[in-house]
Amino acid sequence: MGLNSNRVDHFDSQSPSPTVIKIETEIPPPSMEIHTVHLPPEQTTLQKLKQRLSEIFFPDNPLHGFKNHTSPAKLILVLQFLFPIFEWAPHYSLKLFRSDIISGLTIASLAIPQGISYAKLANLPPIIGLYSSFVPPLIYSLLGSSRHLGVGPVSIASLVMGSMLSESVTFTSDPILYLKLAFTATFFAGLFQSSLGFLRLGVVIDFLSKATLVGFMAGAAIIVSLQQLKGLLGIAHFTSKMQMIPVLSSVFTQRDEWSWQTIVLGFAFLAFLLTTRHISLKKPKLFWVSAAAPLTSVILSTVLVFLLRDKAHGIAIIGNLPKGLNPPSTNMLIFSGPHLALAIKTGIVTGILSLTEGIAVGRTFAGLKNYQVDGNKEMMAIGLMNIAGCCSSCYVTTGSFSRSAVNYNAGAQTAVSNIIMASAVLVTLLFLMPLFYYTPNVVLAAIIISAVIGLIDYQAAYKLWKVDKLDFLACMCSFFGVLFISVPLGLGIAVSISVFKILLHVSRPNTLVLGNIPGTQIFHSLNRYREALRVPSFLILAVESPIYFANSTYLQERILRWVREEEEHIKSNKESPLKCIILDMTAVTAIDTSGIDTLRELRKILEKRSLQLVLTNPAGSVMEKLHQSNILDSFRQKGLYLTVAEAVTDISLSWKASP
Amino acid sequence: MGLNSNRVDHFDSQSPSPTVIKIETEIPPPSMEIHTVHLPPEQTTLQKLKQRLSEIFFPDNPLHGFKNHTSPAKLILVLQFLFPIFEWAPHYSLKLFRSDIISGLTIASLAIPQGISYAKLANLPPIIGLYSSFVPPLIYSLLGSSRHLGVGPVSIASLVMGSMLSESVTFTSDPILYLKLAFTATFFAGLFQSSLGFLRLGVVIDFLSKATLVGFMAGAAIIVSLQQLKGLLGIAHFTSKMQMIPVLSSVFTQRDEWSWQTIVLGFAFLAFLLTTRHISLKKPKLFWVSAAAPLTSVILSTVLVFLLRDKAHGIAIIGNLPKGLNPPSTNMLIFSGPHLALAIKTGIVTGILSLTEGIAVGRTFAGLKNYQVDGNKEMMAIGLMNIAGCCSSCYVTTGSFSRSAVNYNAGAQTAVSNIIMASAVLVTLLFLMPLFYYTPNVVLAAIIISAVIGLIDYQAAYKLWKVDKLDFLACMCSFFGVLFISVPLGLGIAVSISVFKILLHVSRPNTLVLGNIPGTQIFHSLNRYREALRVPSFLILAVESPIYFANSTYLQERILRWVREEEEHIKSNKESPLKCIILDMTAVTAIDTSGIDTLRELRKILEKRSLQLVLTNPAGSVMEKLHQSNILDSFRQKGLYLTVAEAVTDISLSWKASP
Repeated sequence: MGLNSNRVDHFDSQSPSPTVIKIETEIPPPSMEIHTVHLPPEQTTLQKLKQRLSEIFFPDNPLHGFKNHTSPAKLILVLQFLFPIFEWAPHYSLKLFRSDIISGLTIASLAIPQGISYAKLANLPPIIGLYSSFVPPLIYSLLGSSRHLGVGPVSIASLVMGSMLSESVTFTSDPILYLKLAFTATFFAGLFQSSLGFLRLGVVIDFLSKATLVGFMAGAAIIVSLQQLKGLLGIAHFTSKMQMIPVLSSVFTQRDEWSWQTIVLGFAFLAFLLTTRHISLKKPKLFWVSAAAPLTSVILSTVLVFLLRDKAHGIAIIGNLPKGLNPPSTNMLIFSGPHLALAIKTGIVTGILSLTEGIAVGRTFAGLKNYQVDGNKEMMAIGLMNIAGCCSSCYVTTGSFSRSAVNYNAGAQTAVSNIIMASAVLVTLLFLMPLFYYTPNVVLAAIIISAVIGLIDYQAAYKLWKVDKLDFLACMCSFFGVLFISVPLGLGIAVSISVFKILLHVSRPNTLVLGNIPGTQIFHSLNRYREALRVPSFLILAVESPIYFANSTYLQERILRWVREEEEHIKSNKESPLKCIILDMTAVTAIDTSGIDTLRELRKILEKRSLQLVLTNPAGSVMEKLHQSNILDSFRQKGLYLTVAEAVTDISLSWKASP
Repeated sequence: MGLNSNRVDHFDSQSPSPTVIKIETEIPPPSMEIHTVHLPPEQTTLQKLKQRLSEIFFPDNPLHGFKNHTSPAKLILVLQFLFPIFEWAPHYSLKLFRSDIISGLTIASLAIPQGISYAKLANLPPIIGLYSSFVPPLIYSLLGSSRHLGVGPVSIASLVMGSMLSESVTFTSDPILYLKLAFTATFFAGLFQSSLGFLRLGVVIDFLSKATLVGFMAGAAIIVSLQQLKGLLGIAHFTSKMQMIPVLSSVFTQRDEWSWQTIVLGFAFLAFLLTTRHISLKKPKLFWVSAAAPLTSVILSTVLVFLLRDKAHGIAIIGNLPKGLNPPSTNMLIFSGPHLALAIKTGIVTGILSLTEGIAVGRTFAGLKNYQVDGNKEMMAIGLMNIAGCCSSCYVTTGSFSRSAVNYNAGAQTAVSNIIMASAVLVTLLFLMPLFYYTPNVVLAAIIISAVIGLIDYQAAYKLWKVDKLDFLACMCSFFGVLFISVPLGLGIAVSISVFKILLHVSRPNTLVLGNIPGTQIFHSLNRYREALRVPSFLILAVESPIYFANSTYLQERILRWVREEEEHIKSNKESPLKCIILDMTAVTAIDTSGIDTLRELRKILEKRSLQLVLTNPAGSVMEKLHQSNILDSFRQKGLYLTVAEAVTDISLSWKASP
């Protein structure tokens, strides 16, 4: 990128002064040189396009490792690039394996009850959740670039899939169709994710801001928890809707179905799970307490229900689960018919959400261990594992936050821990399924509630309120939108608010009046720096935004208002008359044709009032556009400076010279 | 706004040096003071909200004239504020009246044929066009703040109204319903425009960029011209659709209806009109040649057809027009029924388009005469004149570009010229209507074509291509969208592209590596300024965009990539190792919570690699957010500087002091 390699040493001054405040340096003498403003190096349209596209699509420069290598070495690099497993497998050791086996078994103990519970969340048979903890982790361990991601079904995607599909088909009324739709949605989720990765369009998920997600997750967690009241209270007839009001009314109108045995059991295990969670939060070293709690709850409750099997008929149990490995499900994918649109929509929404979670989780743990995950590669990996999953009876999976946290805390070193987990799930699928016959549904509800309650991050919401009111508004909109309207609409509103915020910032940019900080060449906001002083006969304005069609008229009016106010001020204080307006363009990072017209117009209007318009420090791309539009010719003579200081000095001198 | 009134004179240096290049000034001595970065003055949330809202909605500070006045004086000011006529009426003189009467009569001669033609363009009876040149100009002269705007129906709004309404109702099949819809649409256009003005939401029309409009007008002009082939060729049965393909097929499938007399007459007058237009363009002093041409054509052609009335039966004529003033039409407004949605949609689209034209035209001529028009007041005036219009048998009107140009050239001084024009139209309506009996439709078609052909601004399109490729794309999209799909969709696509461009700029911002220009404290792009040199052990990056959720992950990855590349470069050249990353935040005009998290994350990651992260010159609002989020505490010590130069000096000194 044309990096210049000659360096100077003149900032290493010889003797540090005793105080920090005043330091003698070899900084330039007071003579002032006037620097011309350069155009950026000339490039053809094609070169510019290429550079711009590579910045948009390849900001990480994925091929930087391929330079200066021979062909066989390149082949290995390509393999490593496509399958990160080739990168770490050659260095794999027994020591790493020991860590991985411990963490793999730990997440398996979490994965089994989670798989069963989350499948129920998506209104799917529990066995689908176990299937989904077997194939996808294996695929991910081949393709994924994160070392700590624990792969499996997650609560948000399960919830959204359940809610979106149940709006038109319920599992109880047509289980085959529901399954077909779930697998088809998973296919489209995977297709969407891998194409985002392939087309390097990671930018799409960037538009789900953290504020939006905080609100969304809290809303979803509340909905899910309320939904779990079905299991927790032992209600048999429950609404399939996902909004707050029908769910609550379902809870209270079916009061005669409440079962006290279920309630006692449920709240006991919920209290146990929340206590273990609290312990692990307080002492991160005791992470295994909460990691082991779900499996412990499942075992304890199963044993309990088994022992009381003759007395407690009010407690609903899982019942028979089929033994055996994932059956193929390619014949279940539907690509026509009236429900295709629903499957595609569900696929895209769950795809975006699970991708966001997976990548955010991957980045978080990579950040903690100081390595990088490649966003686009992750999208490919997650997408491909979902495509593989939909052909082997799995539903949407991604990197799960809870599973990855446990994985990380248990000392996972590589993606082998995912393979260990998948093996443990394999053993369960082949031999242990009958053991879950007596597992009560209520304990699954308790596990789900204790998991999603952690998603309500009220502290983050409070911080949003403190730091950025508009972010908080987006957060609240997605929260209430999800709670009272629907998941996609709530998300849509929140994203629109975030985009609106950007557009508002662009269409009503700040303009500041600058003054000189005495004894320096620094010009800064008069409003913010009390020591900054106005320079007589000058009005120095900083525009804090690109100049676009969306703000060019506003800026023109605002600048003319500054001039008017300045002239009124001068009149009332009888100061020396205004002669020159300096626009500091440092923060004007782009300009379009409307913006150029505005500058031309402004210059014309000011000239009629015998005021000079001067631009300082336009950015490279702005300079280029000014040049191409020929407006530069009129600014070239005494109209364009590199810094405000140079402009003020040179112009006031030229006034002295020719008064 | 806390403007500081103490001023310094130290930029007026004592003796100008002989050369311009090196100038001795009283610029600070080489000793360097380290300045602390200030927070902006403290404000409560309410104050900030108030200031922000006033910047968004009242950028022009409309009440600035009301300060320091007694109550009666204030009353007059309020009256003047609401009715600009009170501002100029007291100073009105006979001399001004003489100018206004000449320009008023000139635009009347244009307004009568234009009114008739444009009404035909909207598929309305010709008389509606004349009505629309009577009431609205009178209302505007009371409320409008422009002195040169010529008010009346315009081609674009007429065309759009005609095309949108004709999609579901044609005038020939149900004239009363069509009229009702037209008046109702006018009502909603007026309501929409005045509410935009009242709510001070002028920002909405800012999103129609010039690029979009260039494409839109060219597309519309082509469609209109093709539509006029109906009149020009004398075809009786013609499609009511507005897309290019059905119109062209209509022209060629109805070849047996072509009438040679009509064609000869039409092309003769078209040639005449285009010639006069060409003359006026070449010599602006001869503006009256083209201004008088339409009326001349109408008179000449009417006389000709009257003389040949027994021989030329193939030439369609206007026929009987009712005499008399605008009849009231409040009973024609419909606020229920299946067509209401169409009327509202048409009203909003024509309202936006006519507002854009009206305000752009008003601003253009105000700029030429160096006075200001108030955008929000103009919206109110245009909106109210349309509401008044829809109650008196008028359809959508606005400030017309052609009429205003003629008005300006004819020497109009105040809005009185609009009153003169309205009076001339009044006389026509009362007494001269029978004279138009023999006016041939073909001459109206010729007038329309010669008018809209001027809207095709291929030079502007070429300039867009040269300066900004994405603007050109938006232009082309609206051009082809209008030509082949439909007017609202074409406009919608173009606006989306413009918004997408903003979002793209925000989500993939530029980052630059800065270097020091030797002998100065200026740091500038290494890529652009060949003389700039790197500072060893430092990597100085400028981020050229606000840091938002939409770009925070990108920026984090991009900055880490710069660090990686720099470290590789240093390794291969065996230079002194990288120790400090300086982020120049000058162009970071805003930050949100995701951005703050990114900075925190980045600092953590770099610290793990024993690299220091330093911020320089954060803007006021950014400082505030950093402060509120408590991230500032970790930057306060040696992590925050006012300028890059101060950061480099101070940090390299501190390294010397404690190696």
